[in-house]
Amino acid sequence: MALHRLRVGVAGLGRMGKRHALIFLNQVPRAELVAVSSPDVKEREWAAENLAQHGVTVYEHFPDMLAHDSLEAVCIASATSAHADQSKEAIASGKHVLCEKPLSTTVEASQSVVDAALKRPDLQVVCGFSRRSDESYRDAHRKVQEGLIGTPTVMRCQSCDILDPTGAFVSYAAVSGGVFPDASIHDIDLAIWFFGKDAKIKSVHAIGTAACYRELRQYGDADNAIGMLEFHDGRMVSLFVSRTMSGGAEDSTEIIGTTGKLVVNQVPRTNSVQLYQAGGVFHQMPQNYWKRFHNAFVVQANDFTASIMDKGPPLIELTSAVEVVKIGVALQESMRTGWKICFDEHGTRIDQAHL
Amino acid sequence: MALHRLRVGVAGLGRMGKRHALIFLNQVPRAELVAVSSPDVKEREWAAENLAQHGVTVYEHFPDMLAHDSLEAVCIASATSAHADQSKEAIASGKHVLCEKPLSTTVEASQSVVDAALKRPDLQVVCGFSRRSDESYRDAHRKVQEGLIGTPTVMRCQSCDILDPTGAFVSYAAVSGGVFPDASIHDIDLAIWFFGKDAKIKSVHAIGTAACYRELRQYGDADNAIGMLEFHDGRMVSLFVSRTMSGGAEDSTEIIGTTGKLVVNQVPRTNSVQLYQAGGVFHQMPQNYWKRFHNAFVVQANDFTASIMDKGPPLIELTSAVEVVKIGVALQESMRTGWKICFDEHGTRIDQAHL
Amino acid sequence: MALHRLRVGVAGLGRMGKRHALIFLNQVPRAELVAVSSPDVKEREWAAENLAQHGVTVYEHFPDMLAHDSLEAVCIASATSAHADQSKEAIASGKHVLCEKPLSTTVEASQSVVDAALKRPDLQVVCGFSRRSDESYRDAHRKVQEGLIGTPTVMRCQSCDILDPTGAFVSYAAVSGGVFPDASIHDIDLAIWFFGKDAKIKSVHAIGTAACYRELRQYGDADNAIGMLEFHDGRMVSLFVSRTMSGGAEDSTEIIGTTGKLVVNQVPRTNSVQLYQAGGVFHQMPQNYWKRFHNAFVVQANDFTASIMDKGPPLIELTSAVEVVKIGVALQESMRTGWKICFDEHGTRIDQAHL
Amino acid sequence: MALHRLRVGVAGLGRMGKRHALIFLNQVPRAELVAVSSPDVKEREWAAENLAQHGVTVYEHFPDMLAHDSLEAVCIASATSAHADQSKEAIASGKHVLCEKPLSTTVEASQSVVDAALKRPDLQVVCGFSRRSDESYRDAHRKVQEGLIGTPTVMRCQSCDILDPTGAFVSYAAVSGGVFPDASIHDIDLAIWFFGKDAKIKSVHAIGTAACYRELRQYGDADNAIGMLEFHDGRMVSLFVSRTMSGGAEDSTEIIGTTGKLVVNQVPRTNSVQLYQAGGVFHQMPQNYWKRFHNAFVVQANDFTASIMDKGPPLIELTSAVEVVKIGVALQESMRTGWKICFDEHGTRIDQAHL
Repeated sequence: MALHRLRVGVAGLGRMGKRHALIFLNQVPRAELVAVSSPDVKEREWAAENLAQHGVTVYEHFPDMLAHDSLEAVCIASATSAHADQSKEAIASGKHVLCEKPLSTTVEASQSVVDAALKRPDLQVVCGFSRRSDESYRDAHRKVQEGLIGTPTVMRCQSCDILDPTGAFVSYAAVSGGVFPDASIHDIDLAIWFFGKDAKIKSVHAIGTAACYRELRQYGDADNAIGMLEFHDGRMVSLFVSRTMSGGAEDSTEIIGTTGKLVVNQVPRTNSVQLYQAGGVFHQMPQNYWKRFHNAFVVQANDFTASIMDKGPPLIELTSAVEVVKIGVALQESMRTGWKICFDEHGTRIDQAHL
Repeated sequence: MALHRLRVGVAGLGRMGKRHALIFLNQVPRAELVAVSSPDVKEREWAAENLAQHGVTVYEHFPDMLAHDSLEAVCIASATSAHADQSKEAIASGKHVLCEKPLSTTVEASQSVVDAALKRPDLQVVCGFSRRSDESYRDAHRKVQEGLIGTPTVMRCQSCDILDPTGAFVSYAAVSGGVFPDASIHDIDLAIWFFGKDAKIKSVHAIGTAACYRELRQYGDADNAIGMLEFHDGRMVSLFVSRTMSGGAEDSTEIIGTTGKLVVNQVPRTNSVQLYQAGGVFHQMPQNYWKRFHNAFVVQANDFTASIMDKGPPLIELTSAVEVVKIGVALQESMRTGWKICFDEHGTRIDQAHL
Repeated sequence: MALHRLRVGVAGLGRMGKRHALIFLNQVPRAELVAVSSPDVKEREWAAENLAQHGVTVYEHFPDMLAHDSLEAVCIASATSAHADQSKEAIASGKHVLCEKPLSTTVEASQSVVDAALKRPDLQVVCGFSRRSDESYRDAHRKVQEGLIGTPTVMRCQSCDILDPTGAFVSYAAVSGGVFPDASIHDIDLAIWFFGKDAKIKSVHAIGTAACYRELRQYGDADNAIGMLEFHDGRMVSLFVSRTMSGGAEDSTEIIGTTGKLVVNQVPRTNSVQLYQAGGVFHQMPQNYWKRFHNAFVVQANDFTASIMDKGPPLIELTSAVEVVKIGVALQESMRTGWKICFDEHGTRIDQAHL
Repeated sequence: MALHRLRVGVAGLGRMGKRHALIFLNQVPRAELVAVSSPDVKEREWAAENLAQHGVTVYEHFPDMLAHDSLEAVCIASATSAHADQSKEAIASGKHVLCEKPLSTTVEASQSVVDAALKRPDLQVVCGFSRRSDESYRDAHRKVQEGLIGTPTVMRCQSCDILDPTGAFVSYAAVSGGVFPDASIHDIDLAIWFFGKDAKIKSVHAIGTAACYRELRQYGDADNAIGMLEFHDGRMVSLFVSRTMSGGAEDSTEIIGTTGKLVVNQVPRTNSVQLYQAGGVFHQMPQNYWKRFHNAFVVQANDFTASIMDKGPPLIELTSAVEVVKIGVALQESMRTGWKICFDEHGTRIDQAHL
């Protein structure tokens, strides 16, 4: 008699959807990939070739996949614009949800998912902030909990992608919500994770430039930007986000506390090889975030599965996924307008003149 | 219709056997763990609890496991003294073999496995030198092949374990063959891999000390030892092996070529976290080789499976596994006697007086 | 016949004054320390004990030192409040000037030194931004000039001191002008140096907290602060300044260009020693900026001397020393008020409402 | 009244002699360079141009320099073949001696200097092993003394030069005594320094190859070699020496103790700059030992001067300089003959057959 394994479907088979599907197929012993869905015919062809032979049913329409026999959970990796609606549909039909970040590019839509989830406390509804599943970030978080750096006071975060010579991110800017909601969102989530829920945002301010891709300006977007977060208890975050790094993906984080500092990934490296050649020493960097974080996605999928199978507590409090969107959107607005944006202690936005 | 997956059995369920069994159970999508065997009742109890529910049959006797329905391949992770005989039995019954290193602690027994394998070219018979499956070593090897360092001339290798305060390795010395055949064997294999098959051993010489565990002397063994290998074409290897490192496992390798140098794992680290505290910067090291190399074992199991399923060429030429034992045994003898040991170009041992 | 050596006097014998005096005494072969001055009797006693035996005359009053026989140049290391006046006096009496940073804590006073210097183009008048004399920063600057990173677009700078348990910096806050004019000033100078004179400041914004030393609040100062600079051509600087680092002095700089990135001092270290002990690897950090930069001060003193002896061009354009103060003061004001401060392309301050 | 400064002469103005002369001229406040000597007319011309204006007298003959008015100390930087005789002449005429390493390429000549020095305990007679004056090695040595690594048991040392494309070292091999006495001598001295005088050499063994410069074979020399030292108390040293490194000078040392390990200069770097460019991260290495160690020579000259002026104890026990030559010569012989060379506890050489 075979053991019961969690029956999972994956929605969306773009770059990330394919990865999620293969992870649930091959790297989550307690789960079973039973269905996938995609409105894109090419993506369904890929699934027919690569997944169908393993007994995975391929759907065109998400609602049809939801109705798949005994489906228990879905991983939503479709276009960002579909995240919130698909999440709510899945919750409504009683499925556990692992939704790719962000829940939405608007605060309102993000909140609507939280509202839906609150009505179904029996379901795991998780927004997939992958860094929370990365072993280095987990180790750093554990060390903070153990008091190794005292009280965290300042964070310095950078989410920097290698320059994509195809410029794909330019057209993506039309739908991504901008560089802060899209890329810095991981760092904003880290701030909430490391500072704790009691840290209430007080102000955000950002500036940016389109140094390499001037076309971004038409979307009010930038390829390099810096921002600052201020919390009501005085804590601060300095953000740097870039689409144009030359060496590779650079996602580094410093957590500075009253008695010490933790750094994650200060000098990125692909592996433990160093090459000594004319003049000096060289090592390779991960060329994209997937090389850096793919293992975190495997851990995330396994933890999601285990939390359902073992009826554990929520993996990540979903409300923080809304806060993260709120801050990201405000940063993007600040960058566009040049204005600092402020919030009172209840999280209500206030005009700077009221300060 | 389910796809065919390679039907694998694992022999021996000690520390490494358990790991191999769980890897084949959970982390090799193209394989299916169908059987395990162990003469040890405790180990079988572990299997009953952890594997049986997944449809794995548990055997006491290795030959019974070999007879398991449709078994195609075995992974031999039993005591070293059983490696050679079980490998030959498995080959005789037409199973593919992945045998933990070393094939044996003697050259003769190792060679007998090669002889058996030569008669069955239809079978994959692999000695599991895990470093060949490590991504950093593979990257380094690829870079050598691409000519990035010219001709490799000198290697400096260290296989150093953290000090085990239980002193378990002392009693293990009675059966391990000694520190060179047991631990340096990985480095000897790396030398053969990086220098190529044409590098014929010319001399070995070793010295050692029992700095922390004087009881090792009764076995002619040491807890710290250094050795040198000389090949007939002038290439050289400097070896360092230790059982008493304080910081953690340090398995580092330098490959020095005529136009550059590659280093693998020069400064070991567990992850990408650094801790800044009073006085300076600290990072953690892997506390044992498993933390450093566990992913290599997963890759090895997948590659072994793929080579069989896809009817590929031999993963590693098995003859090198004999050469490795020969060199390791000679180093240990040199350390015991104080004599340099020499070989002619045909590999025949010659007395130093003949030089 | 002895060679002519530049006859130098040092004003002020506090911590930095003593260092400058000893450098000119012992480490500048082409200069001769002939006089020092200090209004402080303890400092003069130190000079009597340590310098007088080397033929150095000790003065109480700065004007008296200026009148010392054949004095050619002065190094001004007195209290910041005296920098501008002493610089102008020295210029008026025809002495070359090496003035410790900053020229003053106000823009007006700083500008008055520049005005005085403009009337005496025959004199070297230098504000001592020591990082410009540090070999690593010089190497980075050279690499930027050589085009190794394309066009510098973003800088991330941190000037972070180890926590001084005596809390000396609290009372110092009363006169230092605040953490930005005092400590970040080095980073602002680096921005001007690396971006070039054409980069016109557009806006500054800062936030800060008194995380460890609440007393700082009475001075409108902070022990940890972050700031952002925006230039009219779109370039940006992210600043972090701290008085409370636990590990040691951390003065790190990233210069991010369109085709590469340079980092100076990413992981600070005192020397090349690493200690492997229980659990991992440790190295020491410099415990203060002097350990990190003392050699830069020696280079600076030698370069200052050489530029006079060899009648070279100005070492650093003095006007940038005013711009640096202007930006530092604006950051401090922004931190106090919560307002972003803007400048038009001519450098005139404009109200944010005018944006 | 000027303070008394130590009156120093420098013998030999080749590459190292020029450096020593300039150090004593400019970087040793308590010393005064008063004379230099060289049999080479080009070298004397250099001195006439660069030193004479500073009041330094230039001599052709060493004995004439020794007779220079009130000369107190000499730094001997002439050809190695002259070291011993000049040292003895200087001692005989009552001068303190700082002699470049080695005292000689033979044990006998080295010992003759020790014998001469023993008769003049009022003189400092120092063999200049520069690494003992390097701040990193001193820090490591201090940490060993403080017990941070327990008892040092094994050392791994490498003295590796960048490949000199002029091949100058080939002709130098005719007089250098070979790669071990010439280059590994620093590492042998480090072993004596870190293990302490009680460590009595038991055996040496070396192998080498002329991988890039086959002409070296005519001198019985190698461009890459490895060696092992064994002491009677069981301690061991593994040596690697190379003339053909591609990246730069690599002089690294590991001191492995019973409770920890110290490493000096594990990854060589010229300064604190890192360059991120296509594919990864690069930093420059020192291109020669001078870049790495020039500050150690300055410290050495200052310490030598201070020990005389302050009538301090011997800086380094001179007898160890003989032991170092003895071991270096034995390594070179072992490499030539293929034989391990052994010594009894009194330091007398014994035939391996006596073991």
